[in-house]
Amino acid sequence: MNEFDFIEALKTLSKNKDISLNLSDDAAVLNNYIISKDILIEDVHFIYRQNLDDIIFKAVTSNVSDIAAMGGTAKYIMAGFGLSQKIDKKKLIDSLKIALDFYNLDLIGGDTSYSDKFFISITIIGTKNKYLLKRSGAKAGDLICVSRPVGYAKKYLEEELSGKNENRHYRFTAETKLGEYLGNNEGVTSCTDISDGLGIDTTSIAIASNKKIFLLGENLSELSPDLPIDDVLSSGEEYALLFTVNPLYFDNLLKNAPKKFHVIGVVIEGEGAYLLSEKRYERLSKFGFTHKL
Amino acid sequence: MNEFDFIEALKTLSKNKDISLNLSDDAAVLNNYIISKDILIEDVHFIYRQNLDDIIFKAVTSNVSDIAAMGGTAKYIMAGFGLSQKIDKKKLIDSLKIALDFYNLDLIGGDTSYSDKFFISITIIGTKNKYLLKRSGAKAGDLICVSRPVGYAKKYLEEELSGKNENRHYRFTAETKLGEYLGNNEGVTSCTDISDGLGIDTTSIAIASNKKIFLLGENLSELSPDLPIDDVLSSGEEYALLFTVNPLYFDNLLKNAPKKFHVIGVVIEGEGAYLLSEKRYERLSKFGFTHKL
Repeated sequence: MNEFDFIEALKTLSKNKDISLNLSDDAAVLNNYIISKDILIEDVHFIYRQNLDDIIFKAVTSNVSDIAAMGGTAKYIMAGFGLSQKIDKKKLIDSLKIALDFYNLDLIGGDTSYSDKFFISITIIGTKNKYLLKRSGAKAGDLICVSRPVGYAKKYLEEELSGKNENRHYRFTAETKLGEYLGNNEGVTSCTDISDGLGIDTTSIAIASNKKIFLLGENLSELSPDLPIDDVLSSGEEYALLFTVNPLYFDNLLKNAPKKFHVIGVVIEGEGAYLLSEKRYERLSKFGFTHKL
Repeated sequence: MNEFDFIEALKTLSKNKDISLNLSDDAAVLNNYIISKDILIEDVHFIYRQNLDDIIFKAVTSNVSDIAAMGGTAKYIMAGFGLSQKIDKKKLIDSLKIALDFYNLDLIGGDTSYSDKFFISITIIGTKNKYLLKRSGAKAGDLICVSRPVGYAKKYLEEELSGKNENRHYRFTAETKLGEYLGNNEGVTSCTDISDGLGIDTTSIAIASNKKIFLLGENLSELSPDLPIDDVLSSGEEYALLFTVNPLYFDNLLKNAPKKFHVIGVVIEGEGAYLLSEKRYERLSKFGFTHKL
């Protein structure tokens, strides 16, 4: 059973699709609350090299980003730790405090246990803003936008894996302010964060919205001029926001936004997500991180 | 840093004590919701022997029990899995379905990943009933009660560890109906579930309530006549409810309860929790399961 089939089978255990969003979005929604849960495991998601600040920051970022992707405001955290002998618990508390202060989160619960491999299991609870953003909702004619240049997470990770003492890929931040803004303003039709890669995540919006999406190669190259476009499309764990905007609202939305964002493509009738440039026309679903499971 | 100091340090990261209950209770409380998070790890909390039904049932029970201990009703579950190669994912779905059906839970989210050791990280969300039950609140003169005879979880676990193909210690059930009843009726002054052992859990009520508690040896022996009293006091993961009742409400509470429960001691002014019998007078804090962390 591959990951896809496993998730399809899990969906049969979800009765109330209004809450679970059919396990197809970044988080679950319970009345006014948005809840996300994520696991990070040593030697699967990170390499432990005494870099607790980095690891904890990334674990928290990954969950906060899920709340931002739904236009919510992250507020509470429950932290579960599987702690191996080598983890300095005092240092762990300090690292957790840094991440919680950065994102203004309040610790409200959790669990710890001994474990051979270090792992982190986080539940983040946020509150909804005016609009709940989902992957579904993109309409023909919408513009698809990204909150910042992407592709660098992959580059920095490769630098770490090649043995350089490189921690930049742990330090990407969740787009908390922009997520909150998008959840409070009219005209945003769908949203997700880039966790698996721009190619796969764009495809997920196209599928959920039942629309066709073109990403424009020239726009992407302009944003990340020093990176091959294949890397831009396949770089995961970026935590940039990817969202579609009704063009009638675009100017106003951009003008008042807490940060600049960038148009990288268009939504039309049809299905599938494609890279479109002068020289290429390719399915986007092949670009991105497919889980090992 | 031992477990106690670690949890004390974590408390400094909890700002809103109304929500976290200072990390001192069985779950956190967010408006109308009660949220509990628990991790179970292979070779720490269970031994994997193809017994997925048992393991998943126990993992879910442990979390549902936390909600019952607060007088709430468990409703939603987010399931995180660290899956090693040997886990049959189809079987895992079936096992999860059995547990969710048993407790009438709706799956609303989660996360899965590859992991060397199998582990389960569960977040359960319940709703509050009329009264929120905490460990604090016991008053002098209250009766302390247990929802069923205890001590057998330890006995069954030892049978498994001695090599018998014994799974009974996985099959204890959470007291969902009684928990809901206690949360809806007047006179219950404190409550927890027996997860670390009757001795330690009674002590936790005494400390949180700033009162002294006597457990009566003769009452305990009558309930579990075939077990040594030391085992009755130290058997963990029982998931029975342990609660104190204002004696003015006792008769009425017992008469209408969905199941019989049993008086095992009294609350008086003072501090500490003690076993009191014809032959013994001992501190209860030494009886129970202290975590390896």
